[in-house]
Amino acid sequence: MKLDVVIAPTLLAEDKLRGRLCAVVDVLRATSTITTALASGADAVYPCLSVEEAKRGADKHGRGSALLGGEERGQLIPGFDLGNSPLEYLAAEVVVGKDIFFYTTNGTGAIRRAYAACGCPIYIAALINMSAVSSVMVGAASAGRAEGIVILCSGRYGKPSAEDLFCAGLIVYQIFTGLREIGTVPLLLDGAGIALGFAAANRERSLDVLASSEHGRYLQSLGFAQDLEFASRLDSYEAVPIFDGDRVFLLNGDS
Amino acid sequence: MKLDVVIAPTLLAEDKLRGRLCAVVDVLRATSTITTALASGADAVYPCLSVEEAKRGADKHGRGSALLGGEERGQLIPGFDLGNSPLEYLAAEVVVGKDIFFYTTNGTGAIRRAYAACGCPIYIAALINMSAVSSVMVGAASAGRAEGIVILCSGRYGKPSAEDLFCAGLIVYQIFTGLREIGTVPLLLDGAGIALGFAAANRERSLDVLASSEHGRYLQSLGFAQDLEFASRLDSYEAVPIFDGDRVFLLNGDS
Repeated sequence: MKLDVVIAPTLLAEDKLRGRLCAVVDVLRATSTITTALASGADAVYPCLSVEEAKRGADKHGRGSALLGGEERGQLIPGFDLGNSPLEYLAAEVVVGKDIFFYTTNGTGAIRRAYAACGCPIYIAALINMSAVSSVMVGAASAGRAEGIVILCSGRYGKPSAEDLFCAGLIVYQIFTGLREIGTVPLLLDGAGIALGFAAANRERSLDVLASSEHGRYLQSLGFAQDLEFASRLDSYEAVPIFDGDRVFLLNGDS
Repeated sequence: MKLDVVIAPTLLAEDKLRGRLCAVVDVLRATSTITTALASGADAVYPCLSVEEAKRGADKHGRGSALLGGEERGQLIPGFDLGNSPLEYLAAEVVVGKDIFFYTTNGTGAIRRAYAACGCPIYIAALINMSAVSSVMVGAASAGRAEGIVILCSGRYGKPSAEDLFCAGLIVYQIFTGLREIGTVPLLLDGAGIALGFAAANRERSLDVLASSEHGRYLQSLGFAQDLEFASRLDSYEAVPIFDGDRVFLLNGDS
């Protein structure tokens, strides 16, 4: 069983994901926000490749239960109901029963690319739900449903981002430990080793990692410092969102 | 002053290198071998983009003082004088006064790409000379000759490799410390932060990092375990090789 981390979508080779379990990470902020929305009661999130695709999806769905959410350059998109701050998706009255058509600069594209490359459901992971996702992936791997496990970091404009690699490294640690406990010692490929080392060097520094990262600094300059604090908390949720190629929903229906 | 690490050549954006000081790292084995050859008395190393380019270069130069060196898939190339093991380049009687036309799968291409993207001389760094290169780069940066510093990891087939990121992280640490001592606190971009964290987590584990890496395992399977030991030793040389767009030679003429 090979365990790998793809440090940026630019490095994604399609053959790498075939037959493997895959989780996508975008700590700041897409996967944090998707997890929060579903844990707060949203029915589903539809990750879109463009603003236009999101608008078309919401129109087709009927605007009654549909919401438009996401960002461009970190900011609210004109005509959208919600931005990409997880804090906007906390209130039950905003999200319960809603289908959210969601576009963000890096994360939603990474989720769609991962599904296209993998051909099977994709786990959605962030710091706020990393243990729950790790645990479910260990269970799926031990059930013999995969040749390996890959964590894909969304990064920023195709390049690596520190906060995603940090989260990926914590997940690698948990999956490695979980698999070893059931008698499987996975082979760590270089991407996984790099993520694990980076996370080990920064253990207990979650908020610092986010706040000193390039994207974290950018978000703070836009006034989103609270988002960093929220997204940096480990395991706020037990929620395990999964993308089936169409929509993201909770695998365990839990919050 | 920004300090960054490009984790794999695939992630190299040309604008990122313009006006910056750049070092290229390929611990296993191109930059280790180039450093060894020059420190052992070779006149120059010509990094080539193909086997054919190396052969043409050697023929044109005249085979009297020319040597052909390098590898494909880790192995000696038919018709070449030397492979890509640094141990082959240690003996004075082999390399003194020689011009080595050199092709390797990842390293020589990364050096040429870095020069094309940067437009000014490129430092050649490995674990065996990392402190010397770091020190020279701090000096050049403090002399105001650059807007920033970038370490480019050669990686493997375009993907990140643990041993190169480890070396890059050690160099980042030395450059950061060196600049701070002269009153400049560089801004660490995400690539540099990731490399620094990974190196910090693996300090004192140099040989382990090489031996457990994907490329290190491959080289051991080919019988090159001694190369890993040689390439993992920190600061065996004071040599600072530099590539001027044509050839690599010693900046400080030292070994």
